[in-house]
Amino acid sequence: MELLKERIRREGVVVAPGVLQLDAVLSHGADPVLTMEMGREFARRFAGERITKVITMESAGIAPAFATAHVLGVPLVFARRKFTLLNDPGSYMVRVPSFTKGIVSDLIVARHMLDENDSLLFIDDMVANGNAARGLIRIVEQAGAKLAGIGLVVEKTFQDGGRSLREMGYRVESLVRISAIGEGFIEFED
Amino acid sequence: MELLKERIRREGVVVAPGVLQLDAVLSHGADPVLTMEMGREFARRFAGERITKVITMESAGIAPAFATAHVLGVPLVFARRKFTLLNDPGSYMVRVPSFTKGIVSDLIVARHMLDENDSLLFIDDMVANGNAARGLIRIVEQAGAKLAGIGLVVEKTFQDGGRSLREMGYRVESLVRISAIGEGFIEFED
Repeated sequence: MELLKERIRREGVVVAPGVLQLDAVLSHGADPVLTMEMGREFARRFAGERITKVITMESAGIAPAFATAHVLGVPLVFARRKFTLLNDPGSYMVRVPSFTKGIVSDLIVARHMLDENDSLLFIDDMVANGNAARGLIRIVEQAGAKLAGIGLVVEKTFQDGGRSLREMGYRVESLVRISAIGEGFIEFED
Repeated sequence: MELLKERIRREGVVVAPGVLQLDAVLSHGADPVLTMEMGREFARRFAGERITKVITMESAGIAPAFATAHVLGVPLVFARRKFTLLNDPGSYMVRVPSFTKGIVSDLIVARHMLDENDSLLFIDDMVANGNAARGLIRIVEQAGAKLAGIGLVVEKTFQDGGRSLREMGYRVESLVRISAIGEGFIEFED
């Protein structure tokens, strides 16, 4: 997706080893025109999969996942990371280490949000090592639902996330693949 | 908004005193058709305000705020609640008590996301006592930006949030106003 690459070239900041900050595009906001384009692209790539719901986790995944759900005409589900008064005590819950937060966090999905007839498309902004993504997959499995595919806005191919998800047998589609980042440079794979 | 009232009547669950759970519509997911309708309605009500950006806070506000930004054709900014590797150390940061989380949490916005020429529309899913909303307003003030209005998907008029924001002089528009909730009943104001 050229439009996205261009924004990353212009606005992407490498804030720590392996950590790419894309505030206005993903982690702190969204550009609706670009985000809708992401949604159309994910919807196009997974068009044959009879997706029933799009799933993501808060927060940076929500805008691109919502756009994808909008284009596909299906509901959006997002996993919460903190148990609050609003959560059902019987919710699916897994504990995962977080790459950018530097701590473990929980992923929580209310049982009634998923069922065994669901064919889910999991959209996320970026995966690092894939720990959170594998956590969400465990929840999908617990619900007896099918994970039809995974769409990543940005895949950092120098980290293991995308590869490990493919090795689990999932179809992973990335809008942009970054092979290396460092102070002052961002290298795209294709 | 009748479509939203109907969903609340059908799916709203009172999970604790004063706490309304609307999982599939707001707090754990989104129905893109309904959410886009929210966006159009907010855009219509604030059409005269020359909005430059929509602002919200993670996570339940993101989908309706994104839809509003999409209809208005402006960028979305969302405050984060947790300081991570991705955040600029110099970010605006305020500490606020959270009604549903039962703890204090931070609101964080990177400085480069806002500037003094911004005329912001703040969209949120629901306010309880308005503590988080007043926190976000302090950030808007620190940035020297103008807060042109506040749009709430659901206003619980039996709590102080909406009123306190109006008393500060802000224009607050709510899509649905709920005057009372309890076990098995939800009362709408109009």
